[in-house]
Amino acid sequence: MTMTAITQEGRTATGSATQVAGPVTLMNGFVVSPDRDEAFYALWSRTSQYFRAQPGFVSLRLHRAISPDATHRWVNVANWASEADYRAAHATEEFRRVVTQDGWQEFPSSPTLFEVHSAVG
Amino acid sequence: MTMTAITQEGRTATGSATQVAGPVTLMNGFVVSPDRDEAFYALWSRTSQYFRAQPGFVSLRLHRAISPDATHRWVNVANWASEADYRAAHATEEFRRVVTQDGWQEFPSSPTLFEVHSAVG
Repeated sequence: MTMTAITQEGRTATGSATQVAGPVTLMNGFVVSPDRDEAFYALWSRTSQYFRAQPGFVSLRLHRAISPDATHRWVNVANWASEADYRAAHATEEFRRVVTQDGWQEFPSSPTLFEVHSAVG
Repeated sequence: MTMTAITQEGRTATGSATQVAGPVTLMNGFVVSPDRDEAFYALWSRTSQYFRAQPGFVSLRLHRAISPDATHRWVNVANWASEADYRAAHATEEFRRVVTQDGWQEFPSSPTLFEVHSAVG
């Protein structure tokens, strides 16, 4: 089991030099061994309740890799109305409490913020 | 500049032990240095013409990281009707020709197939 010190900063995507104006998409990959899917999902589901209630949260899709050998077997893709909304949701005391709770140290995550550059279909 | 041998297999996501039945989502991250965005997008755009014409292609969103220090600064998230459709599109001679063309060796990619586990909004 990987044990990593969990901090509020480590669970938040790096920002842009100047905040982007439009909507942003978070992609957050999680390292989860296949026999721990149930524990991961229970923890993620509780944690996501917090985000879903924040101003500027738009939508999310939680993905699971079809192959067991992916590094990040679970990836959350979440849309936010703006980078400022994303930042505000990750700067609260409740966020700090949620992501430093027991359990998360087992599942390292790799959050990155994107803009949608182009879309088809 | 990173030079990597480009093969049809290296540009295709690892499969599941038994093919999954429903829709699948490809996430394909690309290593692109910030000063090469234009060259990358020109190549990606030409290549995506092939995929968009294949049976079972549903939609895609091409994302660019808002921070220059992301490992995979560009990520394509593409929905396919089934894993079989995704596999078929990656098994053709035209696919081999498209991904082994000059230019792609500059942009290593990391393709992974997922199922959507849960969605909100």
